[in-house]
Amino acid sequence: MARAAARIPLGKETESSDRVLQILSESARLFAASGYDGTSMRDIALACGISKSLLYHHFADKDEIFARIALGATRELYHFVHERLPEGAPPSARIRAFMTATGDYFQRYRWAWLASTASFWNDPEARRQKERMMWRDRYEGLIRTLISEAIEAGEIRPVDVALAVRLVLSSLNWMHRWHKPDKSMNPVQIADSYFEMIFNGLKQN
Amino acid sequence: MARAAARIPLGKETESSDRVLQILSESARLFAASGYDGTSMRDIALACGISKSLLYHHFADKDEIFARIALGATRELYHFVHERLPEGAPPSARIRAFMTATGDYFQRYRWAWLASTASFWNDPEARRQKERMMWRDRYEGLIRTLISEAIEAGEIRPVDVALAVRLVLSSLNWMHRWHKPDKSMNPVQIADSYFEMIFNGLKQN
Repeated sequence: MARAAARIPLGKETESSDRVLQILSESARLFAASGYDGTSMRDIALACGISKSLLYHHFADKDEIFARIALGATRELYHFVHERLPEGAPPSARIRAFMTATGDYFQRYRWAWLASTASFWNDPEARRQKERMMWRDRYEGLIRTLISEAIEAGEIRPVDVALAVRLVLSSLNWMHRWHKPDKSMNPVQIADSYFEMIFNGLKQN
Repeated sequence: MARAAARIPLGKETESSDRVLQILSESARLFAASGYDGTSMRDIALACGISKSLLYHHFADKDEIFARIALGATRELYHFVHERLPEGAPPSARIRAFMTATGDYFQRYRWAWLASTASFWNDPEARRQKERMMWRDRYEGLIRTLISEAIEAGEIRPVDVALAVRLVLSSLNWMHRWHKPDKSMNPVQIADSYFEMIFNGLKQN
């Protein structure tokens, strides 16, 4: 887990250097705090303690930095969640792990999550958008498969799979809109409670 | 219902004229199609078939138009949903009506919903933000009260009310991110299915 916590989503890991890592990390923090428009290349250089010309040596512009964070975050989310699905466990236990791992990722990489969400819907660059979509589709494919398997195993009644997927993802994807880091429940606990509510339902039996 | 369908969310109804109504309606359509940044005062004037100077006679700038749409949409959502809660029905039936009415509102006023969602989180004007928050709080208060009443009536098991509210609202609030108007299920049917899944749960009994 320590390894995962120390990893920062990157475009191509082979290209990365400590400096690039630092720039992406500080930028993500600034984007999350002040928004894309509220963060300048000057702010990023200042936060990194480097000159603007050194910053421009690594990145052509702010958009390139943002895109690297956002693309990396979507791909990392897939890997992070995929690695945490308990092998051989019943589908419902794996659905629960999918949800809590997503909460865990959100908790660890809140800034990258915010950058990714913002650019996911607004990235004007078609190629990057396509690559991000591919990773998002793989991530969504995980939960779609798990819900289908749970129905087949008789753990879940035969509901509309696509809509059940949307319900699970909506609960997780809306979290960044309202959750404050100082809330009493952390995102892992919230995701776990959501699983419990969605799986067992609210109805008094 | 015809009356509601013909109503357009407005800032102050007493100020409104056919012209203002037309400007707000066309602007909302353009904002929804091209985004706030992708829509100019020139585009709005063209869409309305009026001169830019006549447009500026009614509104100081694009931001004022956007804010009027967004504020109006939040307030109208509250009234629209509130009017559709069946009086005297059991709390669970009223929760279902809350959800399907929200789907209905989204279906009718998609453009206003999008404008409202976009500006809800980014409006730099504190006073407008505060007023919108007040209407949003009243809307959220409806579902909070209904879930509490359903628990008291023994229809819902004693879950965490705040989190159950978040689950219901997440399912509805995320819809604009993925639902296309040409989808086979319309937003009312989707909201109804969400109610069924959340209330009864996915678990096979």
